[in-house]
Amino acid sequence: MSETTSSRTDARRLRGVLAPVLTPFQADLSPDPRRLARHCRWLLAHGCTALAPFGTTSEANSLSVDERESLLDAILEDGVPADRLLPGTGACSLTDAVRLTAQAVRRGCAGVLMLPPFYYKAVGEDGLFRFFAEVIDRVGDDRLRLYLYHFPPVAQVGFSAKLVERLLRAHPRTVVGMKDSSGDFGNTKTMLDSFAGAGFDVFVGSEQFLLAGMREGGAGCISATANVNAGAIDRLYREWRSSEAERLQTELNAVRGAVEKVPLIPGLKAVVAHHAADPGWLPVRPPLADLAPAQRDALLADLAALKFAMPELRG
Amino acid sequence: MSETTSSRTDARRLRGVLAPVLTPFQADLSPDPRRLARHCRWLLAHGCTALAPFGTTSEANSLSVDERESLLDAILEDGVPADRLLPGTGACSLTDAVRLTAQAVRRGCAGVLMLPPFYYKAVGEDGLFRFFAEVIDRVGDDRLRLYLYHFPPVAQVGFSAKLVERLLRAHPRTVVGMKDSSGDFGNTKTMLDSFAGAGFDVFVGSEQFLLAGMREGGAGCISATANVNAGAIDRLYREWRSSEAERLQTELNAVRGAVEKVPLIPGLKAVVAHHAADPGWLPVRPPLADLAPAQRDALLADLAALKFAMPELRG
Repeated sequence: MSETTSSRTDARRLRGVLAPVLTPFQADLSPDPRRLARHCRWLLAHGCTALAPFGTTSEANSLSVDERESLLDAILEDGVPADRLLPGTGACSLTDAVRLTAQAVRRGCAGVLMLPPFYYKAVGEDGLFRFFAEVIDRVGDDRLRLYLYHFPPVAQVGFSAKLVERLLRAHPRTVVGMKDSSGDFGNTKTMLDSFAGAGFDVFVGSEQFLLAGMREGGAGCISATANVNAGAIDRLYREWRSSEAERLQTELNAVRGAVEKVPLIPGLKAVVAHHAADPGWLPVRPPLADLAPAQRDALLADLAALKFAMPELRG
Repeated sequence: MSETTSSRTDARRLRGVLAPVLTPFQADLSPDPRRLARHCRWLLAHGCTALAPFGTTSEANSLSVDERESLLDAILEDGVPADRLLPGTGACSLTDAVRLTAQAVRRGCAGVLMLPPFYYKAVGEDGLFRFFAEVIDRVGDDRLRLYLYHFPPVAQVGFSAKLVERLLRAHPRTVVGMKDSSGDFGNTKTMLDSFAGAGFDVFVGSEQFLLAGMREGGAGCISATANVNAGAIDRLYREWRSSEAERLQTELNAVRGAVEKVPLIPGLKAVVAHHAADPGWLPVRPPLADLAPAQRDALLADLAALKFAMPELRG
């Protein structure tokens, strides 16, 4: 795919650590743009290169398209820089995906991170290819930079190497990367070996694979845990070639392991709420459910034992 | 659950054969309300008691909420009777589910058929219960009749007997039935044995289970194939106690078997297009894909060999 390399000299291309930003909700379960913008700024000041709002960790599929549009507008108006945003714009509905993607491009976002349409489960490569081709054609804007969000454990529908190759061949300037949340580093390595040489940026979907990913030519990570631990993840991203790398990876894994003992999204919200001294961070939208108090206490105790901190978050 | 029986003397309650109505698309993939309304009227005149638009077969999750709202308004304005409609209003987003459900109630629909939120896969009973309780509370209308759409092979998320019991106990006048598309008649029997006595109406999700369902106290079927074969399915529904019942079931199974040899939704659209002499029925929205010409020819030949017909559809 070397014919595409020359088109990949794109100053806006993202590398490093991205957080799929948690979405705070008010007591009535409406999204809270003020808390969201504040958290975005904190993340950018504490280890995140950029942000991937409206991902799985953001409960984006629990929001309406209107809510997603309004929230993106609100954080941009609150000063979060568009060129450091990679919003999730995938949807089951072609028209929804087009609308969200067009908004992101119009507002100057660095790119979009797209789930495949995830309702129908037995769809073939042709239908998925056509879905993305239609989105790209209908958005019709050369500025679009599209990252594929591969997350078969939750979305069930994913991107085969063959589908990625077909998309790259048809849209080499637009399809520029992937978040691999398969949990299978073998798959990440296949994607890196097949496409990274042509300038396709592969982000691991958990910092547990960050060191391995960087050693194989990865672009960084987009990980839920970056909402609370971006500084430490960023240190490994910057120092992966150093003699400290294995130790840093082990430390990241310990924090991740503590958080993964409980349901991840309410768990991360509980950590932010605790360190920000702000219980307004706790609500999740159903079908997610709050942590039980005992789960929350155990999580916070586990993190305290690891000397985990979130600097300057409070207030 | 006998305390709920007295509240179930509801003249509007549906029984019989319902079609999850196919959604026709124009060449630009926008929905076609005129063809949809015409098909609704044909179905009601040829075997359907009522209609369940915006289901899986309707590609409803490939539509935006705006498109779903507009289409429902359009077919009502075109004369399709609201009291014979059970639109699908489930969504991953609480706010979308509330908006669609409120519209259906406001427009006088007989009920709604709700998928659970289907993005997150490891959700617990509490979160699902809270989702439905929030929808019911926010719609806030005693006229709401809610049918649960259990379809684990595609939605992955489903309704356990324990969750159904909890919903029935909390909302006995509102939660009134289920479509069981599990493909597992053992599950259907569990639901019937547990809840039918209290007036909970269980519809099988395929006519292949219609005779078995009726023998166990079922309310009928809501089946994709009813889009093309409602008359024959309705005959078995009405004559399930007769000596002809086994033969009628066998004939239904033969038609279903022919259609199931190809992807179901483009297959059904190809059958309607052929019998209506209207290629405008063919388009599907990606991620679904058109049938290959050879698949279509084989399907039509299989149905012709079964002397399959769609009376008065043409023109």
